[in-house]
Amino acid sequence: MNPSLSRFLFLVFSAFSSLASSSGDQDYLLLHRPLFANRHVAGGGDVDPENLWFLCASWRFAGEANNLAPWAIVPLECGGYVGEYMTGKAYVFDLEITAREAAAFARSVPLADDGKDAWVFDVDETMLSNLPYYADHGFGLELFNGQEFNKWVEKGVAPAINSSLKLYMEVLDLGFKIFLLTGRSEAQRAITVYNLNSAGFQDWEKLILSISHRGTGDARKSAMLYKSEKRSEMVADGYRIHGNSGDQWSDLLGSNTGNRSFKLPNPMYYIP
Amino acid sequence: MNPSLSRFLFLVFSAFSSLASSSGDQDYLLLHRPLFANRHVAGGGDVDPENLWFLCASWRFAGEANNLAPWAIVPLECGGYVGEYMTGKAYVFDLEITAREAAAFARSVPLADDGKDAWVFDVDETMLSNLPYYADHGFGLELFNGQEFNKWVEKGVAPAINSSLKLYMEVLDLGFKIFLLTGRSEAQRAITVYNLNSAGFQDWEKLILSISHRGTGDARKSAMLYKSEKRSEMVADGYRIHGNSGDQWSDLLGSNTGNRSFKLPNPMYYIP
Repeated sequence: MNPSLSRFLFLVFSAFSSLASSSGDQDYLLLHRPLFANRHVAGGGDVDPENLWFLCASWRFAGEANNLAPWAIVPLECGGYVGEYMTGKAYVFDLEITAREAAAFARSVPLADDGKDAWVFDVDETMLSNLPYYADHGFGLELFNGQEFNKWVEKGVAPAINSSLKLYMEVLDLGFKIFLLTGRSEAQRAITVYNLNSAGFQDWEKLILSISHRGTGDARKSAMLYKSEKRSEMVADGYRIHGNSGDQWSDLLGSNTGNRSFKLPNPMYYIP
Repeated sequence: MNPSLSRFLFLVFSAFSSLASSSGDQDYLLLHRPLFANRHVAGGGDVDPENLWFLCASWRFAGEANNLAPWAIVPLECGGYVGEYMTGKAYVFDLEITAREAAAFARSVPLADDGKDAWVFDVDETMLSNLPYYADHGFGLELFNGQEFNKWVEKGVAPAINSSLKLYMEVLDLGFKIFLLTGRSEAQRAITVYNLNSAGFQDWEKLILSISHRGTGDARKSAMLYKSEKRSEMVADGYRIHGNSGDQWSDLLGSNTGNRSFKLPNPMYYIP
């Protein structure tokens, strides 16, 4: 929306981005499948500053529609755009329409009285916002650093995404059983429960965590596979998955994905 | 981007939209599953004109991420936004990034020499643009009118989507077999071949058409099911579907969807 602000932020971010990409190379190699670092939004060509906002908006669209190759970092030129998006009203509006459509669908589902109607929520960037962390780390211009991110998680201060909290309360109220399915590790269970509770989330049926951290061990087999397996276990237990809310396509694709998926916006990172 | 232009177009479009929705009720009822006519972008509430552009952009994001309930018409307030998007550079940039990512993926696929590596393309709003038709029909503010649309198809003058033509040539050149899988009917085969050829598309392996028109007969069982069945036949014939390009989620979901999907933008209509 504001190209001059974009350009300013771009200059600020590009100052530390070369640093960030060299320190992050290890995480890059750890990931189980190739993440292409499309560092330039226009495929390597020069970007007309007039078109920068449009190009970055197209890059964001492509990510939300799952058109991008698995990507590791926000394109260098789009750091300003993404920062502006994440801290402005566009992100809030995108969250709100997603929650509103999900709530409308939830209200339309006829529930059985066997307590087996389920809704699945992812945690990070779905229920809890790590925006304070990512604001300190270039809104996705830095490669993901698991150690740094886990330090932030351990603080247990991630705020609720308000539209998701409202949806959560309504879905719970309608009688769905809520399953939280997250790539966070079992070692982070206590702090995650604490953080969720203090952000206002309660009364879920089950919180399912990974046996290891993002990008290592179990999680290396891809979040999509891990989450599909866990949903299969739910279905084997007799649950009917109606809705599935997550900010990553790996939350929403695979098997037993539910009758409807709701993709929350997230242009900051991609988890395969 | 330009709220005053949006408001102007909104006034122009709303003048005929009540007319359009009454004449279109029959098509609406014909469709096999409920299409919710979310006629208002803010869920029924008043829209602050300051926020209109953002709200309509969020609505478009929600559609591209497949978050909307099946929808029948562009929200009343967003006619101006959609018209501006479709005729401006944002649409072109969105098309281009989608084609570029698809081409990058195509180049990365190791092809066998058995001639069984396949790429699937949808036709309307993927290879051919019906923008001239939709520009005359409110860019999605009118309910779909099959009779009127078929008259347009019979002219055979739909222009190529340039980025798709470039992708098509590259995919063909790389050695993929190209399958065109469209909801257009067998009765439209000759004119479709004529239109595709004159727009520059040639040398496809197979053009698969529906036995009946969109919204009637066979097509009522949903494009998703129809296209899944046709892809299953391809796979049964030994083809490996690597890429799948389409502007509708019903092109890209279902079974045998290929290794990668590429969702072209389309905020004008939704085909279940």
